[in-house]
Amino acid sequence: MSRESHQRLTARPLVITPDPLPHLEGSAIIETGKTKVLCAVSLERSVPKWLAGRGSGWLTAEYSLMPGSTVPRARRERSKVSGRTQEIQRLIGRSLRSAFHLNHLGENTLHIDCDVLCADGGTRTAAISGAYVAAALAVRRMIGRGEIQADVFHRQVAAISVGIVGGAVTVDLDYQEDSSADVDMNIVLAKDAGLVEVQGTGERTTYSRKELNSMLDGAEYACKSIFAAQIQAIEAGITARQV
Amino acid sequence: MSRESHQRLTARPLVITPDPLPHLEGSAIIETGKTKVLCAVSLERSVPKWLAGRGSGWLTAEYSLMPGSTVPRARRERSKVSGRTQEIQRLIGRSLRSAFHLNHLGENTLHIDCDVLCADGGTRTAAISGAYVAAALAVRRMIGRGEIQADVFHRQVAAISVGIVGGAVTVDLDYQEDSSADVDMNIVLAKDAGLVEVQGTGERTTYSRKELNSMLDGAEYACKSIFAAQIQAIEAGITARQV
Amino acid sequence: MSRESHQRLTARPLVITPDPLPHLEGSAIIETGKTKVLCAVSLERSVPKWLAGRGSGWLTAEYSLMPGSTVPRARRERSKVSGRTQEIQRLIGRSLRSAFHLNHLGENTLHIDCDVLCADGGTRTAAISGAYVAAALAVRRMIGRGEIQADVFHRQVAAISVGIVGGAVTVDLDYQEDSSADVDMNIVLAKDAGLVEVQGTGERTTYSRKELNSMLDGAEYACKSIFAAQIQAIEAGITARQV
Amino acid sequence: MSRESHQRLTARPLVITPDPLPHLEGSAIIETGKTKVLCAVSLERSVPKWLAGRGSGWLTAEYSLMPGSTVPRARRERSKVSGRTQEIQRLIGRSLRSAFHLNHLGENTLHIDCDVLCADGGTRTAAISGAYVAAALAVRRMIGRGEIQADVFHRQVAAISVGIVGGAVTVDLDYQEDSSADVDMNIVLAKDAGLVEVQGTGERTTYSRKELNSMLDGAEYACKSIFAAQIQAIEAGITARQV
Amino acid sequence: MSRESHQRLTARPLVITPDPLPHLEGSAIIETGKTKVLCAVSLERSVPKWLAGRGSGWLTAEYSLMPGSTVPRARRERSKVSGRTQEIQRLIGRSLRSAFHLNHLGENTLHIDCDVLCADGGTRTAAISGAYVAAALAVRRMIGRGEIQADVFHRQVAAISVGIVGGAVTVDLDYQEDSSADVDMNIVLAKDAGLVEVQGTGERTTYSRKELNSMLDGAEYACKSIFAAQIQAIEAGITARQV
Amino acid sequence: MSRESHQRLTARPLVITPDPLPHLEGSAIIETGKTKVLCAVSLERSVPKWLAGRGSGWLTAEYSLMPGSTVPRARRERSKVSGRTQEIQRLIGRSLRSAFHLNHLGENTLHIDCDVLCADGGTRTAAISGAYVAAALAVRRMIGRGEIQADVFHRQVAAISVGIVGGAVTVDLDYQEDSSADVDMNIVLAKDAGLVEVQGTGERTTYSRKELNSMLDGAEYACKSIFAAQIQAIEAGITARQV
Repeated sequence: MSRESHQRLTARPLVITPDPLPHLEGSAIIETGKTKVLCAVSLERSVPKWLAGRGSGWLTAEYSLMPGSTVPRARRERSKVSGRTQEIQRLIGRSLRSAFHLNHLGENTLHIDCDVLCADGGTRTAAISGAYVAAALAVRRMIGRGEIQADVFHRQVAAISVGIVGGAVTVDLDYQEDSSADVDMNIVLAKDAGLVEVQGTGERTTYSRKELNSMLDGAEYACKSIFAAQIQAIEAGITARQV
Repeated sequence: MSRESHQRLTARPLVITPDPLPHLEGSAIIETGKTKVLCAVSLERSVPKWLAGRGSGWLTAEYSLMPGSTVPRARRERSKVSGRTQEIQRLIGRSLRSAFHLNHLGENTLHIDCDVLCADGGTRTAAISGAYVAAALAVRRMIGRGEIQADVFHRQVAAISVGIVGGAVTVDLDYQEDSSADVDMNIVLAKDAGLVEVQGTGERTTYSRKELNSMLDGAEYACKSIFAAQIQAIEAGITARQV
Repeated sequence: MSRESHQRLTARPLVITPDPLPHLEGSAIIETGKTKVLCAVSLERSVPKWLAGRGSGWLTAEYSLMPGSTVPRARRERSKVSGRTQEIQRLIGRSLRSAFHLNHLGENTLHIDCDVLCADGGTRTAAISGAYVAAALAVRRMIGRGEIQADVFHRQVAAISVGIVGGAVTVDLDYQEDSSADVDMNIVLAKDAGLVEVQGTGERTTYSRKELNSMLDGAEYACKSIFAAQIQAIEAGITARQV
Repeated sequence: MSRESHQRLTARPLVITPDPLPHLEGSAIIETGKTKVLCAVSLERSVPKWLAGRGSGWLTAEYSLMPGSTVPRARRERSKVSGRTQEIQRLIGRSLRSAFHLNHLGENTLHIDCDVLCADGGTRTAAISGAYVAAALAVRRMIGRGEIQADVFHRQVAAISVGIVGGAVTVDLDYQEDSSADVDMNIVLAKDAGLVEVQGTGERTTYSRKELNSMLDGAEYACKSIFAAQIQAIEAGITARQV
Repeated sequence: MSRESHQRLTARPLVITPDPLPHLEGSAIIETGKTKVLCAVSLERSVPKWLAGRGSGWLTAEYSLMPGSTVPRARRERSKVSGRTQEIQRLIGRSLRSAFHLNHLGENTLHIDCDVLCADGGTRTAAISGAYVAAALAVRRMIGRGEIQADVFHRQVAAISVGIVGGAVTVDLDYQEDSSADVDMNIVLAKDAGLVEVQGTGERTTYSRKELNSMLDGAEYACKSIFAAQIQAIEAGITARQV
Repeated sequence: MSRESHQRLTARPLVITPDPLPHLEGSAIIETGKTKVLCAVSLERSVPKWLAGRGSGWLTAEYSLMPGSTVPRARRERSKVSGRTQEIQRLIGRSLRSAFHLNHLGENTLHIDCDVLCADGGTRTAAISGAYVAAALAVRRMIGRGEIQADVFHRQVAAISVGIVGGAVTVDLDYQEDSSADVDMNIVLAKDAGLVEVQGTGERTTYSRKELNSMLDGAEYACKSIFAAQIQAIEAGITARQV
């Protein structure tokens, strides 16, 4: 592959569908290219033991590659959870907790389950962007019922992958690009508030400070449209169920 | 609840959508009432060790309640698989193996993953009926590519739940009916070929031979429309991808 | 094997020995043909958490193939329990719970352990029939000590396997018959009260409604002598310990 | 308890029944007092990988408290094996391996399963003494069929527990004696060949060299009748099956 | 705490001791402040299956908090490995693999075990810096024996933590600083070759691009003395064993 | 190896270093020959549930071969603990509990972690001797702070391995001696108070009462210098920290 073929600074086509699971408080399907992740929020009317009695809420995330999400099939993690999965769900949980003032949530727990329906690169960052929509829908409905105050919302959070492929900064890598990337980063951003998380790995080589800054520029630019799509999906979901 | 309210001899509204996961050889979403199950077939170009070298194929199934499929949330089975789940996936596997001449499949394995998106009763029988569609799509495409002969198809298989609720035979029980049922059966039928599996449990009481036969009558009648919906979904899926 | 050789409508020779473990409240060894199962009741003076405080009792069952019960040796299930074992012990528990009014048992739990000493087909149904004797002995002794009322007894429960082997209905299949059966059923009956559980699997073929009814006829007939042998063993056990 | 009550230098009444499981090559039930252990030998026509190809055999042992063997009920070890169980089955295996010239056994493995039917102290030593009988029966039959040479037999092995209870050396402790023992030893002896294994623990106090030697005297004396009972059971078993 | 108290741009006192385990090919103890990590290399004369037959080597890492490394005691991970541990050992492995041309290592595996003796912040970065020394010692000795060529060495790798504490960039955070940090980064650098890995988490707040660059400046500066200490330790170790 | 080469009745050179982990209440490194074990005490201000509320304390031990302690590398026990490890840590716990009047310890638990840095035979006995020093340091400091009374100390405990190698009694066997030993014993002694635990296994042969007594003589003699080294290390540790 030539370098030119990867000079791709815009993310893949993005679709966020609110409320695919109407029996839940909030859910979303996010698609970027062929990657497709189902994000579902389950509301639990209690908090983990270590937090109980303080009036504060909690948010936790799980991530899973569904067996049919990859070819060949991804084995279910039924006897132990892989390091990769644990690392990803810790990242999703951390990122989403930074989006809400959990101390204003009451003693409730938001469980966010991110299940990958089709995996073509960028599943963990898509999961974060989609999980924000699902969680925001659930929180908006709790606010709407008067259970909690509007100030639970803190920052709008989205994520994107970016890398150096064939020498060029490339945004929102698909599986093939990811496999041949020299550097691979996952970046979580808060709207108008800077960086939430930066994870950058030189898979095949090291990278310079200048390259790091180019990748961050690409990520910041690409996240603008994700932030917009998130708001649109949330509003569409709220409107549709109110009718 | 009065007895009259349960005299329901027709199944809930049924929708089978072929190929929701276009990157796979075969998949289907089956909805009956609010119950919704994703059935996905992954084709593996080998067979388990104990079968290797005989030229025969294999079919295996897994079943899972997705965490957001129930309220309250269903915990993921990540360290051990429950007895209920194991019992269900053994039933699905057995039923689907009876649908195909696996010895004509070549040394291939069909992995069928049945993941429940929304659970409102009858998830195991819906999984069987949907898994047949997903598997048939995959097999049809293998035949279409000339990899295997058409005689892999053996019998068309579908399943339905039936019970006695408030004294009356009721077909395709939803969660609430199931919870209050005196007798609960799961029946797997082969089109024009009789019974594949009968599992009937007197949850709160015993049942007579006459009641058993009434339930079987109800199941046989209800399966007629499932058989028709399966064929329609398979043909729609084959046609759509050929275009 | 010819069809005639399987036209066997009587169960294998049946022996039930009460109280092989004299240190327990109730135990029994049941032998049918070469199959031999030890059923032992342990009485626990409490109930599971989810039931506590309601004055009701509980009954739970475990099943195990002892390592020497089969040739070749059956591996112990020490790190995880197989689907087959879980399915069987769920069936035994469900069946035995239907035999007693557990809400009249006080806050006690009957643990019934069914350990197969020799496995030659029909171990799960023998376990149910033997477990009834062991449990009845324990309950009779609790009644005898005035701890609970006699109305804990609800229905006498027994079980039998039945199948279609070489085209003929066959009752109480041994291992070899079971291995070559076209249809394999396990039926749990309550004396004078109909069906408790029906599980019928078309292993190699489907079966008709007429065949189903013939198998049920065979099972009902065979259970008559099991019911009689159970009563005899219970009375012998009670008498022997009173002396 | 007074010291006198424990001055018990003879073992409890001992009964060894050969071949309670007639479908196996060798089995035995050993009873000492109320303690009762089933020892079953399964013959496997291969050896562990690390030994394969050398023409030598292997012997391995497993031990288990059956759930009904104790009051209150002993939980099954189904997800992990306790330290106590592992320690005991390592001891049984080691002791029995010293009884046979395994390098003359051919590439066969003897699996010895020791399942405690009733636990009233001394189960691990009873298991060793009973396992010797079961294994000897199996080996005698292999020799009888001409599969292996008679020189597989090396030493006759038996075991006994001995302790200091209330200040007095006591042999073959029952559960109550064991619970109040100051010192608790398990001794494995080879007939006319000295000590195989000595394990002595000062549970509540230390013990002197003199006390150690008294306990060993007691053990050696008690083992004489065990050696005799073993031979008698083996001969009875061989004779009975030959008829 | 005031901001001034954290304006600490130099790392804590650093000591690297080569070869604390003389029976191994390479080992090191690294101390930074009170944090103390033992890094031990075990050389295995084979590679994982998926790599076998290509003539290439492999390097893998494990990380563990020893129980006494923290107060209160850190529980051993004996039944399952936590997400934190897995994440850390994946990071160490990835970082160290970038230090060597593993395809020039022959079919050998370097297992690097990083066991924390005392945990006072920065254990994962200390582990990386110390693991480089241990691995370099082992590789130098393999080269010295003529087993492999000198070109196995690729890049010198070191790591440091850096954060924003009380508003000020702080390098090599101890436990207390880490607990109160707003932003926490772990940075892996290759000498004269840029970034290997950047992981930055806004624990309590987000961070700006400018702050990110200040933290990277701090890390780059601090790593200079780590690179020097590594070389010194390696040379001291090589010299000492040659004598 | 000739018999003469093993006539070794003195233990290997012994070094006990107090407080290698200064952040703990008590720790020790014990070296005998090349064998080297780190013993660390963690003090927990509570007791296990089954002991709570009685004012008594508890002591528990864990043992682990560190991965780099052997060549080839010892695999970490991360999913299940081996029988050998469990047996050893039960022995260490039992032996150390006999050294203290735990009922005078208050509701505190001493966790003693024995991690083997280098394994060259005798690791379990070295662990016991070293654990005594670590525990004594912790208890002395608790007494020094007035938290508990001096009468917690009961007996000074040490352990040694002894065996018959090439026909001769040999004390404190290294790995090579241990591998070729005919008899292998581990003996735990209390100073001026006799035997705490005796575990002797005839690995390749049986042993006579006379040989047993010779081994015990050897062990008793060798323990004299261990007792002295323990006291010296404890005093050195107490003095050093007081300064």
